[in-house]
Amino acid sequence: MASRALKYYYDLLSQPSRALYILLEQTKIPFEKCPVALRKCENRSSEFVQNVNRFGKLPCIIHGDFKLAESIAIFRYLSREFQLEDRWYPKEGADRARVDEYLEWQHANIRAQCAQFFIYSWITPLLGMEVNQAKVDRLRANMIECLDVFEREWLDEGRKPFVAGKELSFADVVAACEIEQPKLAGFDPRVGRPHLAAWMERVRVATNPHYDEAHKILYKFTPKEIETPKVQ
Amino acid sequence: MASRALKYYYDLLSQPSRALYILLEQTKIPFEKCPVALRKCENRSSEFVQNVNRFGKLPCIIHGDFKLAESIAIFRYLSREFQLEDRWYPKEGADRARVDEYLEWQHANIRAQCAQFFIYSWITPLLGMEVNQAKVDRLRANMIECLDVFEREWLDEGRKPFVAGKELSFADVVAACEIEQPKLAGFDPRVGRPHLAAWMERVRVATNPHYDEAHKILYKFTPKEIETPKVQ
Repeated sequence: MASRALKYYYDLLSQPSRALYILLEQTKIPFEKCPVALRKCENRSSEFVQNVNRFGKLPCIIHGDFKLAESIAIFRYLSREFQLEDRWYPKEGADRARVDEYLEWQHANIRAQCAQFFIYSWITPLLGMEVNQAKVDRLRANMIECLDVFEREWLDEGRKPFVAGKELSFADVVAACEIEQPKLAGFDPRVGRPHLAAWMERVRVATNPHYDEAHKILYKFTPKEIETPKVQ
Repeated sequence: MASRALKYYYDLLSQPSRALYILLEQTKIPFEKCPVALRKCENRSSEFVQNVNRFGKLPCIIHGDFKLAESIAIFRYLSREFQLEDRWYPKEGADRARVDEYLEWQHANIRAQCAQFFIYSWITPLLGMEVNQAKVDRLRANMIECLDVFEREWLDEGRKPFVAGKELSFADVVAACEIEQPKLAGFDPRVGRPHLAAWMERVRVATNPHYDEAHKILYKFTPKEIETPKVQ
């Protein structure tokens, strides 16, 4: 296995792109970096849609001649093809199920809420469109409620060091990359959530230097009043 | 293995509840039926949240003393614990990855779009709240675009008999149960989509009598102008 070339298409401004980038670097899977600029809509070009990913989204891979989209499906595929360590995706029934439960739950919760707030309040003005403040407030309130559920149910108010239990798994990387995103729009998810803040720092330390490398561009565009690490 | 009692909590008016119900019946996994009435908000009761599912959602299981939420995570857990046939969830790398790709893709697409249209246009008036027709139109347009992508990319305009290839998998059951839902609100997803219509009938035939049993209540409440099977 792993003898076929693996091409990884990503943009580090995309949350799931960063999560898979960190995984690939941490697990030392050999891969070819194929950056695609979302800001230039390169992912929507007919060349990309025809030859790389029929849905025109990031991230995605081509492994040999096998094309695969959807970051979490790619993660599961890589975990089998490259026989990743158990820590990323436990083999045992209940432990694996808990990681799976988070990876399903996040779609309509952490992923949806943080991304919707970020896209509307950060992208809309960039496109020169008017921002409806009532809508921003509603999206922020939904995100806040979701982050509170995350801290309460997934981190058990700090009694669980990681999302799926005692060990870091890919679920933590996915969650942290999503929760970093609203910082760009001036919202610091750590404020008033000490257990979430401590967990984010644990995930960062456990996956550095790749975590900071993946977030370098995000740190750069984060407003100065929100503290971010210094990265060379 | 499979010696512990399996309790299944569900409501057949919920799309993912039906999908897992069909799987459990088709694979002859022994389980205890624990219906929970969404219309009575039984899933929000403190008893349910404390003892069954901390998120107050359906479906979910308790297997022995292991509690698990999220229908797709439950499916993966059952596929391991009860060693389901390969047809439901292929073991081979690329075939499994294609099922996984659909199961991830659907969250923000078929699941989100069909459910949002259904909830707003069917539930809102039931609650005695005013319906904004412009919003209904927008949600319908999003759903239509998504169903068109489904027929084009996942069924390859009828060249693929099932979502992940030549064989029926759990991905088809999940997709069909979602695409049935907007019928309740008077929208027939089969109109103008012959490949989607033929695929829905294939999924139904392949999983009957359990498909019709799971959809009996949906058929009952579907407006008369939309054709539904006669079920005893």
